[in-house]
This record gives sequence, C-alpha cells and structure tokens, in this order.
Amino acid sequence: MSATVAYDPKTFYDELVAHGLILPGTTLGIFGRGAVFEEVLTAFNTLVTQVAAHDGNEKMLFPPCVDRKLIEKVGYMKSFPHLAGTVFSFCGHDKEHRDMLERIQDGKPWDNLLQMSDIALTPAVCYPVYMNLTGTLPPQGRTVDLTGWVYRHEPSIEPTRMISFRMREFVRAADPDTVIEWRNSWLERGLQLMIDLGLPAVSETATDPFFGRGGKMLVANQREAKLKFEVVVPVISKENPTAICSFNYHQDHFGKTFDIRTADGEVAQTACMAFGMERVTMALFKTHGFDPKRWPKPVRDLLWP
Amino acid sequence: MSATVAYDPKTFYDELVAHGLILPGTTLGIFGRGAVFEEVLTAFNTLVTQVAAHDGNEKMLFPPCVDRKLIEKVGYMKSFPHLAGTVFSFCGHDKEHRDMLERIQDGKPWDNLLQMSDIALTPAVCYPVYMNLTGTLPPQGRTVDLTGWVYRHEPSIEPTRMISFRMREFVRAADPDTVIEWRNSWLERGLQLMIDLGLPAVSETATDPFFGRGGKMLVANQREAKLKFEVVVPVISKENPTAICSFNYHQDHFGKTFDIRTADGEVAQTACMAFGMERVTMALFKTHGFDPKRWPKPVRDLLWP
Repeated sequence: MSATVAYDPKTFYDELVAHGLILPGTTLGIFGRGAVFEEVLTAFNTLVTQVAAHDGNEKMLFPPCVDRKLIEKVGYMKSFPHLAGTVFSFCGHDKEHRDMLERIQDGKPWDNLLQMSDIALTPAVCYPVYMNLTGTLPPQGRTVDLTGWVYRHEPSIEPTRMISFRMREFVRAADPDTVIEWRNSWLERGLQLMIDLGLPAVSETATDPFFGRGGKMLVANQREAKLKFEVVVPVISKENPTAICSFNYHQDHFGKTFDIRTADGEVAQTACMAFGMERVTMALFKTHGFDPKRWPKPVRDLLWP
Repeated sequence: MSATVAYDPKTFYDELVAHGLILPGTTLGIFGRGAVFEEVLTAFNTLVTQVAAHDGNEKMLFPPCVDRKLIEKVGYMKSFPHLAGTVFSFCGHDKEHRDMLERIQDGKPWDNLLQMSDIALTPAVCYPVYMNLTGTLPPQGRTVDLTGWVYRHEPSIEPTRMISFRMREFVRAADPDTVIEWRNSWLERGLQLMIDLGLPAVSETATDPFFGRGGKMLVANQREAKLKFEVVVPVISKENPTAICSFNYHQDHFGKTFDIRTADGEVAQTACMAFGMERVTMALFKTHGFDPKRWPKPVRDLLWP
C-alpha cells in the first residue's frame, strides 16, 4: 500500500457507488449491494467455510428478527438500548387506517397508530443460538456455524457503519479451558486469514459501546478481563482502523441464562467469533482497489481457486 | 403421493422440529432453520440460478430493512398496513434507561420510551429495486435477480406462514409486451420446475390480502385484470394449497412512481416473480418425506447433480 492513500468516509462511499459496488440508499446506514460486491463477499464466505472445515460445526440459521423477550432476557436493553430496534405494527380498522393514510399524505407523524409487537430486530447473530443449547452438552461441547443479518441503530455516513449487515459467526459452548483455547485458535486463524488476503490487519483488545453512565463500568471490566478482541484494518481512517472480525468471551453469561451445562454438570461457558462480511469486503476494495480483476494474484487465487 | 397423507399445520410443524429441520421459536412465525433444511433450500436456490441463467439478469442485494419513506411511497401502508413492520428505537438518556429497565424487570410495557425511526422492515424483496431503475431503460429493458428476507406481520401456527422468510425474486422492467411475455415465460418455467421436483403443483390466478373495505375493490380489480398468479402445492392443507411461487404484473405502478421509462420514452411497465424459499423447501419435505437421502432419484439428481 502506498503511504499516500487517502482515508475519508464520504469519499470511500462515493467511490463504492461510482464503481457499482454499492447502490446508494435514501437514509443513512441502508444501501444495496451490487453484483461484484456480492461476488467478493460470497468468495470470502466460502474461504471462511474452508478455514472452519475441521471444527465439527453444526449449522443453524435464524431470521433477522427475534422474539422481543429474547433481547430482554440476554440483557441487550441493559447494555445497548441505543442500538436496538423493536418492531411496531398496525392493529387498527378502517377508521384508523384512513387516519394513517391522511397523516402519511400530509407528512405528519403516524406513530400513534402503531403498537409494539412481540418482535425485535436481531442485534447479534448468536443470540437465538443459546436457547438451542439448553441442557447437557456432549463431552466435547458444541460449536455452531451461523450466517445472518444484524441490526444496529447507528445511522452514519460511514459506509462501514451500517444499520443492517451480515455476520458469519461461530459459537463455542464447552468448559472454560476448551472455550478459551477455541477463541485463541480463531484469533490466530482470523488474523492469518486477513494477512493472507493482503490486508494490513492487526489484532487488539477491544471494548463494546456500552450505554450510559453504568456502561463505563462494563467497559472497564471488559477491558481488564480481556473479554473482547478485534482484528482491525484501516478502511475509512488510518488512526481509527475498522473492526472486521471480533472475538467475544462471554464467560458463564449465556450458560447461566439458558441453563447450558457441560457433560460433568458445571455451568458451560461460551464464546463467539464473527466476521463482519460487508466490512471485510470493503477492506478488500480499499486495500486492493475497486476492480477485483486487478487484485494481486495471491489474493485472487485464495478467493477464486 | 398416497391418498391417505394427513394435512395439519400443527402436526407438520412438530414433525419439522422432530427431524431437526426447524428449530422451534418462542413466538409465532419466528423459528430457526437446521442444517438439512438449509442444504435443501440452497440446492433449490442453485437450481433456480440455472433455470434463470440465460435471462441476462443483473444481481442486486438489499438488507431486510428499508427507508420507511419507501413503503409510504409505494403505497404499502395503503394496501397492506396490517402486514407492515416499522422500527422503533430508544433515544433517551440514563434516566429513561433506568425507567425502561425497571419496566422490563416488572414485565410492564416500555413502548412509551421508544420513538419511531426512519426504518421499516422490507415487505417485498423488489421494493428497493425500482429507485435503481429510474431513468431510461436500454432497448431490451432490465431484469434484476434478488434474494432477501421479507417481513409480514401475520403471527400464525402454520409453519408455512412466517413473520420473516426468504424470497428468490426476479424483476422485469420494459415495455408492456416484453413484460407480459417474460411473466408468462416464468409462469411456465416456475410450474415446470416444481413438477420436475415431483411436487403436485398447479398454477392459478390469485389475489393479495388487501386491507379493509377499500381492499375489496383492489382484490376485484386484481382478479379481473389477472394481475397475480401463483403456483400452489398442498403442504398444510389439501383444500387450501400453499403458494410457493408468485407472479405479479404491476402495469405502470412502479414505472410512474419511480419515473422509469422505456428507450422510446414511454412509462415502463414492471412485473416480478418470486419463489418462497422456505415454502418450496417445506413442500419438498411434505411431498417426499423428512429425509432427503430417501427422496426419489430424479428429484435428488436435480437438486444435487
């Protein structure tokens, strides 16, 4: 990479649009993906499948919506209320419907005609997994392979900060030693994969954007216990590189919440690791240019063997 | 198929769960998909790609959320307000957050602490496409290939009636003759594909569940003008077979709304066709049994060549 590469969120968004890689949206954080963007993302996803091939993963898939009670139960509204999305729906009749259409016509708010539903947007691909692990794990524990759309309410001009995006995620549930060993193995494999793809990636300890005054304590605890790591790459800023891969050690949080036990009866521990699929794809375009045909041969050979 | 096959939504759901094909949810219409379910769905999706290979499709992909103004603009709140989902989010500070957590803790409603956002759930995979077709089409028009998650707020015990599910969809924008010819070609190919897969499928004219008193007129118009067709297969009922594939002719609705013009300057017409991916998959399990290894050889050969 040349030392003169410029980093700027707005310019990068415009370049992605100009090359047909993303299709511009009409509200911040929501946009389409073009054919070439999806080719790269799909090739990367296949590569991840190969890297994970011998992990004994079970595949599960969940929709982009969950039971609202789930995000209440896992503590999401405590830690990240500002990022959550809950679904409201219309339960009225003809009269309320006419009122709604008039309000829409006149550009007036129509939220008063909606009611909170039982549904929330999925904030993390792994949340719906844990209730499927309740009970006693086999001796080797369980490992789950997931792909899904997540919702984060943080409208932004940064193309890397989307309201709705895909994660390829793996979850491990087992005894503490096994879980930490698995997390460490993925920390190594995840970083190596990015380096093999020619990305200037490094790994580092990280923290989550916990909400409010109480959140400060959670951040301090997370940092001290080294519960979160990220692999980061400069995409829209050199000083603040973008997390393209994250590793979270939950200790016994989900094991306790969903009564998951190891074969010898202890509360199981869990960890997850996830690739931000759009972010990895954008990091490849930023690093190697907007035309994959002109990417370095070793990178092309890895993505399209 | 034996004449003694039993049809019952609850039994079919329980059988899908018992065979690990779906992972039970905790609220109606939301559940996970297991590995074998996804293998079948993915194989069918690949088969659709083959059938569509020579159509000159452009690929686009959109997230499961859209700008709320889009569903207002296309008239979704007029026709299907009861099926829509809009996203609300928390914009408060520490005080409101404490209030929210207390309400959640006490099992009280907390909707008063949320505000309507700019985001809605995607109700049809094709809606975000049309603004990308604004302007003058090339002489042959344009054809778009899409896959995505859609939201329909109709909680139900029927496994075939999901709140969140995937559609593989194609959109055609061109002059009226070209659009109708394309629709007819897909009507034939879609039905033939289902018959080749051993499904007892038939095609028929259909109508949408338009809302309220005004909706009755829209249904009558749609039926009279034959704007909607479906391919249906018995899955949870013999008398009311399930639509697994639908074909919608929009005439100039989207052409006018998004200023899409043909090469000779007329308002373009559009049509779309979509496979309900989970429904096709469930129809295969209902028809051929819960173990794909024991499906008829011609069906297996088609799905796993």
